Amino acid sequence: MYKQQLLDCHNRIKPYIHRTPVLKSRLLDEISNTQLFFKCENFQRMGAYKMRGATNAILLLSEKERARGVVTHSSGNFAQALSLAAQSLQVKAYIVMPSNAPKVKKVAVSQYGGNIIECDPTIEARIATASKIADETGATFIHPSNDMNVIIGQGTAALELLEDYPKLDYIFVPVGGGGLIAGTALAANYFGNNCLVVGGEPFEADDAYRSFHSGKIESNETTNTIADGLKTVLGDQTFPIIIKHVHDIIRVTEDEIISAMRLIWERLKIIAEPSSAVALAALIREKDRFYQKQIGIIISGGNVDLNNLPF
Amino acid sequence: MYKQQLLDCHNRIKPYIHRTPVLKSRLLDEISNTQLFFKCENFQRMGAYKMRGATNAILLLSEKERARGVVTHSSGNFAQALSLAAQSLQVKAYIVMPSNAPKVKKVAVSQYGGNIIECDPTIEARIATASKIADETGATFIHPSNDMNVIIGQGTAALELLEDYPKLDYIFVPVGGGGLIAGTALAANYFGNNCLVVGGEPFEADDAYRSFHSGKIESNETTNTIADGLKTVLGDQTFPIIIKHVHDIIRVTEDEIISAMRLIWERLKIIAEPSSAVALAALIREKDRFYQKQIGIIISGGNVDLNNLPF
Repeated sequence: MYKQQLLDCHNRIKPYIHRTPVLKSRLLDEISNTQLFFKCENFQRMGAYKMRGATNAILLLSEKERARGVVTHSSGNFAQALSLAAQSLQVKAYIVMPSNAPKVKKVAVSQYGGNIIECDPTIEARIATASKIADETGATFIHPSNDMNVIIGQGTAALELLEDYPKLDYIFVPVGGGGLIAGTALAANYFGNNCLVVGGEPFEADDAYRSFHSGKIESNETTNTIADGLKTVLGDQTFPIIIKHVHDIIRVTEDEIISAMRLIWERLKIIAEPSSAVALAALIREKDRFYQKQIGIIISGGNVDLNNLPF
Repeated sequence: MYKQQLLDCHNRIKPYIHRTPVLKSRLLDEISNTQLFFKCENFQRMGAYKMRGATNAILLLSEKERARGVVTHSSGNFAQALSLAAQSLQVKAYIVMPSNAPKVKKVAVSQYGGNIIECDPTIEARIATASKIADETGATFIHPSNDMNVIIGQGTAALELLEDYPKLDYIFVPVGGGGLIAGTALAANYFGNNCLVVGGEPFEADDAYRSFHSGKIESNETTNTIADGLKTVLGDQTFPIIIKHVHDIIRVTEDEIISAMRLIWERLKIIAEPSSAVALAALIREKDRFYQKQIGIIISGGNVDLNNLPF
């Protein structure tokens, strides 16, 4: 079922997304003692893989639903992705953002045509505000990760990667809300050749690691990590897929994230977010387990604030 | 003559270089009111187009000459390029570097197998030391820019760009020693369809602009620019080609260079050197002249020190 859904989704969103390139680096292969294939979703439209899931979710709405618009709460890449996907499809997008969200993120959402509604900076306020807007406008709520249409959409990055490199032994991705890793795990399961999926997660926000091992959805008490895209937690849609199909989750320190980010910038010559670097950091931390394997790494996004770099 | 030389050179160096990708950006097109095609030599081996000329120069040596090695003086990308090209071809490379060259650059040269010889930090000492090594070892001196084999090699970047996009109206490149712009101008002349070549140069090191207008090779009294690859001056090989085939040279301020660099990093999601950003800065400064034209821009390199960024 998911196999056909992934294929249909890919055909559906193709006109609205870029097929992103795959980069290699001899030096990073030497450092890791593996063969690495970097799927560059930082080159995706609006700079992150989230464009895939957002586009799929909107395309699956009925005409009536499209006419009433979409709503989400996010201060990150999904806010921009839903705004741009909605703009491309001439649908209205309401974006609930906490009042303390960085100005640069609000500007980006506005540039992509999103209508920003500010709320108090709590999870409760975000959910309540989004719910109120859905009630008032009839807009359809689309969750940034915990939504099967979004999950399937995110899985198309790995689908493309496996089309290009069918023999991958592993695919590494960062874990935040779990949309990317769940979609990737489904794609690897149906289109890989015994391809296993491994998540990278900061020690400072390791809810998915703990959930993976405890068997129930865990939360974070604090999320003091540079990987600001990975502070969210799993949901009832993402968690069962992760439990069933993900091979392992590896935690990394903040220093390991920054080192991996530096390697990507210096060696691949591309801009990757701290959250993206978590996947490479996880591989390097436990590289002996993956000796001489062929490994895909999804560079999830490239939206960074150049005024606030860790170098 | 140059036409066949460019084609032969391209075939000769192909096994040793990457065919670099061409990126586009809707937003940068909007900002400039043009259609832009970025030839990403930052993804070239060792991170800059200089790999092309260095490889060509070594491949054109006789077996006897190759056995005796090559020598150059450079503290920049050509030092690394000649080292890596020599290593790939199992030739010994002597690299004369000023004693005050940044440690990071010396490490890079060493990693590519170059043998570093330090000298006093003056042009005279560099030339004298390189000459002494050539005498002692029999190594062939290869100039970083003022050498026809190097110039033809650098021209293959534009050759590839015009193969991919034959209708370009202009190609913009940065101007330092003039190897890239001279090679690009030859390629545009023989393979373009009325394609004109424009150089970008910092006001702070505008020797090429002044040479272009005075008709003789001018020098710089100071070179206080962030574009550290563009501090060198034209030579007797590069200058006549530039006078004959280059359309114009546009000067830019340091602020314009940094703004253009930020646009490239934020919008294309790639790491480009300050020197590379000079070409885009030149276009943006005089964009009204190039309204709606199809414009190639050569991103010359991506070797930056992340500890020393202008953001």
